[in-house]
Amino acid sequence: MALRVGVIGGGQLARMMIAPAVELGLDLRVLAEDEGMAAQLAATEVGDYHDLEVVRAFVADVDVVTFDHEHVPQQVLRALVAEGVAVHPGPDALQFAQDKLLMRARLEELGVPQPDWAPVRDASELQAFLDEHDGQGVVKTPRGGYDGKGVRVVRAASEAQDWLDGLADGEALLVEELVGFVRELAQQVARRPSGQIVAYPVVETVQREGVCAEVIAPAPHATDRLAQVAEEIGRSIAEGLGVTGMLAVELFETDDERILVNELAMRPHNSGHWSQDGAVTGQFEQHLRAVADLPLGDTAPHAAWSVMVNILGGPQSGSLGERFAGAMEAHPSAKIHTYGKAPRPGRKVGHVNVTGDDLDDAVYVARAAAAHFD
Amino acid sequence: MALRVGVIGGGQLARMMIAPAVELGLDLRVLAEDEGMAAQLAATEVGDYHDLEVVRAFVADVDVVTFDHEHVPQQVLRALVAEGVAVHPGPDALQFAQDKLLMRARLEELGVPQPDWAPVRDASELQAFLDEHDGQGVVKTPRGGYDGKGVRVVRAASEAQDWLDGLADGEALLVEELVGFVRELAQQVARRPSGQIVAYPVVETVQREGVCAEVIAPAPHATDRLAQVAEEIGRSIAEGLGVTGMLAVELFETDDERILVNELAMRPHNSGHWSQDGAVTGQFEQHLRAVADLPLGDTAPHAAWSVMVNILGGPQSGSLGERFAGAMEAHPSAKIHTYGKAPRPGRKVGHVNVTGDDLDDAVYVARAAAAHFD
Ligand SMILES: Nc1ncnc2c1ncn2[C@@H]1O[C@H](COP(=O)(O)OP(=O)(O)OP(=O)(O)O)[C@@H](O)[C@H]1O
Ligand SMILES: Nc1ncnc2c1ncn2[C@@H]1O[C@H](COP(=O)(O)OP(=O)(O)OP(=O)(O)O)[C@@H](O)[C@H]1O
Ligand SMILES: [Mg+2]
Ligand SMILES: [Mg+2]
Repeated sequence: MALRVGVIGGGQLARMMIAPAVELGLDLRVLAEDEGMAAQLAATEVGDYHDLEVVRAFVADVDVVTFDHEHVPQQVLRALVAEGVAVHPGPDALQFAQDKLLMRARLEELGVPQPDWAPVRDASELQAFLDEHDGQGVVKTPRGGYDGKGVRVVRAASEAQDWLDGLADGEALLVEELVGFVRELAQQVARRPSGQIVAYPVVETVQREGVCAEVIAPAPHATDRLAQVAEEIGRSIAEGLGVTGMLAVELFETDDERILVNELAMRPHNSGHWSQDGAVTGQFEQHLRAVADLPLGDTAPHAAWSVMVNILGGPQSGSLGERFAGAMEAHPSAKIHTYGKAPRPGRKVGHVNVTGDDLDDAVYVARAAAAHFD
Repeated sequence: MALRVGVIGGGQLARMMIAPAVELGLDLRVLAEDEGMAAQLAATEVGDYHDLEVVRAFVADVDVVTFDHEHVPQQVLRALVAEGVAVHPGPDALQFAQDKLLMRARLEELGVPQPDWAPVRDASELQAFLDEHDGQGVVKTPRGGYDGKGVRVVRAASEAQDWLDGLADGEALLVEELVGFVRELAQQVARRPSGQIVAYPVVETVQREGVCAEVIAPAPHATDRLAQVAEEIGRSIAEGLGVTGMLAVELFETDDERILVNELAMRPHNSGHWSQDGAVTGQFEQHLRAVADLPLGDTAPHAAWSVMVNILGGPQSGSLGERFAGAMEAHPSAKIHTYGKAPRPGRKVGHVNVTGDDLDDAVYVARAAAAHFD
């Protein structure tokens, strides 16, 4: 009988696991938040992942549990593990992707390079940090942020007063130095429960308004040293934190060629979408192999360059379907992936991958194809 | 709402349409012959495709109908078309993939190069053909053959007596000259209802015991002229017969560098499986684009060489799953596709694709990975 992989969360990441699951012969089952979500085709249950009973019922029919997002509460995950359920990544690892303060503290212990940071509970603590860092900093809510929500550049403690006021007893915000990065990078690695690790080439990511807009793989002008340092960071975090499945490490590259860790995701990540069409083993297939403890696949790119451009929001007028046909007609080499989601301003509804020998060409085609959806 | 593509037949070809359908945002619905078939995940109905009522009920909920195989009776297809259902390929085209005698006659009209052939109704007609062709020939049942079943090399009419005896009134067998080919090739093209055609590079196919065993893309040592002639044949058949969707043209290459058409398939075909991992647009995606009348995708290979090796029958001992893990471990660059079918001697249960710069390496890895399933 086919191995049953249960995915908690029915978004586009779960959806994009369907294709490789079919080819690998894995029986993918999704616990979706609602009817009609992106991963509908594989949804076997609909329910609230905060509710242990719902999750328990779902996992009764699967061999291993993994995730579309990092929002499943620790108590739920720990209860499953206590009951003998295979959960990948497990709660001990996942907590560091769920809470940026926990992550900063743990990466410090591991000696991983990162921005200066501090937990701050009130305005005076925050102001003290800002004063030590040229009067500026990046304040983050430790939990639940995504797409830049929960991230704010501040030049005075008062600019984060609303968040400080909202803190419960014992909670803190994270403040980081405002890194003057020259660019952002991401390093993907995959790790099996049995310990095998593979690394993808480091990629460049471009965010716009806090949202990932474009990715170039591998990162242009990456020296061997840079690529090696990034890979080493990815491997040591995967091992140090006991990650199972895909790990994405968001990185800053500084003008003095240092690499600092921004944050972690323990699942397929937007910065790895290029690999669907640009690598021998795409990240969704790799995640499934890793969580199912199957031997990992070759991470080599099969083109000199891969470019990913997100499709955000969808058309002001006309249907997504019409735009699709227009983009496909104009750009036969563009691989357009659609998430089956209703368009809404700023929402990720799909992405375009283009591979090729010439980076400028690939960037041009990927952007031009994505522009059909504006 | 997503365009609904209905596939009649629940075998591995329907199964392999699931992955690209998800990424393209098409709603794939399969009429399967039984429960638990390869394309189970997308099966929305189970029933007998010979039964017009069954098929009518199935197509009521789809926008376009296509196929996993060519066995749906003409009467059923013509009834659908008369009722306004979009059927691709349509019955007028499909008849030439359903009946090898019809095909031979039509290709002759089109002036497509093919082996000498004749319809034969009795032993004397067959013997007369053999006498004119060095006393040998290949006898074929015009309908329903696959994997070499329904194909027999004969040196005397008596060797086909059982088939001749089985002929109903008005029926005939097909006899062809026994072509002394140097190798077999296949040409894939895709054609949309609106007329757009794209061609894949011609590939070499190796059959063992009448079953496709290996495919190399592009065909090694193919001269530009050979590639051009093959492509021209593919295009002219697609146009001449009004094919919609993928068309595979099986070809013989003779020692005097002529190309002769063996037979046609109007659907994704084993000889095109390499394109899943070796071309910008795989044949399953291309078939969906074509039958949905969406712009066709780039057919360029993204590696110098792609090699496909079929997994036949499955292991004598141990489970398919164990073999899988062994093959993946030993060959991380091998893309193993599994059909979710129970192993049975000689049955196609999966295939392996490998791409690379070096043909010998790719052949070695693909064969070695497939050998794990022996
Ligand atoms: N310390 C920092 N210095 C400079 N810029 C920063 C810093 N931290 C975050 N940023 C910028 O803000 C973006 C979003 O930050 P972060 O990744 O922490 O937020 P998020 O909402 O969790 O992100 P995601 O979009 O990945 O879900 C980063 O990609 C980077 O551009
Ligand atoms: N005229 C011929 N001369 C020489 N060999 C032939 C001839 N016709 C068929 N063959 C051999 O027999 C094989 C099977 O023939 P054909 O493709 O017609 O049968 P099939 O059962 O429809 O095939 P498939 O395996 O593609 O379903 C061919 O691939 C070729 O190797
Ligand atoms: Mg981030
Ligand atoms: Mg054949």
